[in-house]
Amino acid sequence: MNVRVSAIQGSLRQLGVDAILLNSSEVVPSFNLRYLTGFTGSDASVMITRSGLDLFTDGRYQTQAAQQAPDFRLHVVRRKFDSIARVLRSARVRRVGIEAARVSHEFVTTLQRKLTGVKLVPLNRRFVEGLRIRKSPEEKEKIAGAARIASSACEQLLTSKLEGWTETEVADALETLFRRHGADGVAFDTIVASGERSALPHGKASNKVIRRGELVIIDFGCTFEGYNSDETVTCVVGRASSDQRKMHKAVYEAHMKAIDSLKIGVAPRDVDRVARNSLHEAGYGKWFLHGLGHGLGLEVHEPPYLSPLGKGVIEEGMVFTVEPGVYIEGIGGVRLESLVYMDKSGPELLSRMSKELLQIS
Amino acid sequence: MNVRVSAIQGSLRQLGVDAILLNSSEVVPSFNLRYLTGFTGSDASVMITRSGLDLFTDGRYQTQAAQQAPDFRLHVVRRKFDSIARVLRSARVRRVGIEAARVSHEFVTTLQRKLTGVKLVPLNRRFVEGLRIRKSPEEKEKIAGAARIASSACEQLLTSKLEGWTETEVADALETLFRRHGADGVAFDTIVASGERSALPHGKASNKVIRRGELVIIDFGCTFEGYNSDETVTCVVGRASSDQRKMHKAVYEAHMKAIDSLKIGVAPRDVDRVARNSLHEAGYGKWFLHGLGHGLGLEVHEPPYLSPLGKGVIEEGMVFTVEPGVYIEGIGGVRLESLVYMDKSGPELLSRMSKELLQIS
Repeated sequence: MNVRVSAIQGSLRQLGVDAILLNSSEVVPSFNLRYLTGFTGSDASVMITRSGLDLFTDGRYQTQAAQQAPDFRLHVVRRKFDSIARVLRSARVRRVGIEAARVSHEFVTTLQRKLTGVKLVPLNRRFVEGLRIRKSPEEKEKIAGAARIASSACEQLLTSKLEGWTETEVADALETLFRRHGADGVAFDTIVASGERSALPHGKASNKVIRRGELVIIDFGCTFEGYNSDETVTCVVGRASSDQRKMHKAVYEAHMKAIDSLKIGVAPRDVDRVARNSLHEAGYGKWFLHGLGHGLGLEVHEPPYLSPLGKGVIEEGMVFTVEPGVYIEGIGGVRLESLVYMDKSGPELLSRMSKELLQIS
Repeated sequence: MNVRVSAIQGSLRQLGVDAILLNSSEVVPSFNLRYLTGFTGSDASVMITRSGLDLFTDGRYQTQAAQQAPDFRLHVVRRKFDSIARVLRSARVRRVGIEAARVSHEFVTTLQRKLTGVKLVPLNRRFVEGLRIRKSPEEKEKIAGAARIASSACEQLLTSKLEGWTETEVADALETLFRRHGADGVAFDTIVASGERSALPHGKASNKVIRRGELVIIDFGCTFEGYNSDETVTCVVGRASSDQRKMHKAVYEAHMKAIDSLKIGVAPRDVDRVARNSLHEAGYGKWFLHGLGHGLGLEVHEPPYLSPLGKGVIEEGMVFTVEPGVYIEGIGGVRLESLVYMDKSGPELLSRMSKELLQIS
């Protein structure tokens, strides 16, 4: 039996509900549903009670759902809300926990109209993310595999001169290399931001041509067996100016100090503060415009969040990014991002590229 | 001034609200926000009143939002809900329409807690999709561009023998060709389903090896300037058996009859019925497991829906798929999908591949 589902069943009483209901649609996907069931299709609802597991989907997914989620009783339905209401009634469920952050408001109001004597209880505590936050050895291997592929691909890319290429050409070349190194796909639109555009923290590749002397931020990730990677390097085409060196050095030191501060039991917000203080001391603090990092797994962004608002503590088995950056409008920016697995003994780097200053001749 | 925004402003009274609020996040993206603002980042809220346009995002998107959404007053915020509440108060807004299908339940409940004297009104009428459903000439050109690229790529792919390739290798080769023909990316995970797997309506490419004599469904689409394409062909590796020919012929006829029935003012459910009746007459009706088609544009699936439950009528400027299919578990399946633009004078095919039986030698 699926240990993830058992953990949810074991927590129902504590959550104060008789069942939980998850829904995944194309518009509002739930990776939690996928995590708990194994089903990778884009339209399904799942109900978990102490004694029953039900999965509702439509005819397109009949065979796939039966294969991927054999533990679940399969309902192939046309009118999903009616079917869910019927099963809830026959299971005599009174209180149903819903994933408030991962279902649309419309889903909740529509379902509620079909139910009498059943209360939908918003669970805001991210009760499935709480399981997902510590990765199993199998999950770690998949993320490490994705990270290894992406790093190798980017290392190969940077044996080319980028001068005269458009940012889009760089992104395309990197994404093609992902595949050649064994990736299943691209984790997110590859960011290639050069020259003044490097001051955009999320500067998707554009048709701008890369020129000698410019900073180039490359933020990239691939997917491998359902899991993602995420890494960022910043390079200079040609020789770096002293201002570019100074900016890189400030970010590099913040990045290294933050990684050095990682220990089981430390608060994520304290790790963020280590990097932020380091950048402030170097005179770049006001240009660090985002949190230090984010968890990663089935999704590219998931808990834990290493930010001034981050909660909880660093635990064994977490996987997250450490990515300080500086962005000066009209000038340019530097971001350095590593992907970290928290082992009992300390941080293990899953991303493989050096974060030292890269000068591409 | 942005005509899309003006249309929304002009409809506020009719919707019974003083403002509408849209929110786009990574977990619950709103393509409507993108359609109305031009902003392509993944985290923002937008408020539209008769006299004001406000966009709330975080520091990562400061420069990008200013560039992409110049009509909007930009608020770069850390605590979005507080900022939205403040702006709503100062605009003296009483009733705020929200996109009930495109915001999480949590978003609505969290925002409501910050507001006193302001009512959040769920708008279920898909009021922005109502604008998006008729494509402008510029939008049509982008979709046609995506469709042309994808068809050319698949035609080139099918000059190879697929025998002995894995489904994944076929998908990878096609996606690489997309790029080479000018696509920006992949619209969805390419479906390659061969042999018995062709009975999976959504059979993502697997490691199964393609053998002589098998049916192979290839369902593919690319993105081009923010818009998507979608097309499906079914081929046989080698010579088709008489059963395979019969199944293909039934689907082909349903596909052609449905396209022939397309006229301005016809009900989508009637077009679905034309295809469904045709398959029933050929003896395959019970294996047609999904609706006939769906609209397409910024999203791969959007209104109109051509299904037994579909609403409204076919209008000029709509873009949608026509994709009958037959799926027999343990045997295999056939799906044929064309992408159609509804012109005043009748349907125009944007996808370019022939839907006749493809035998790959």
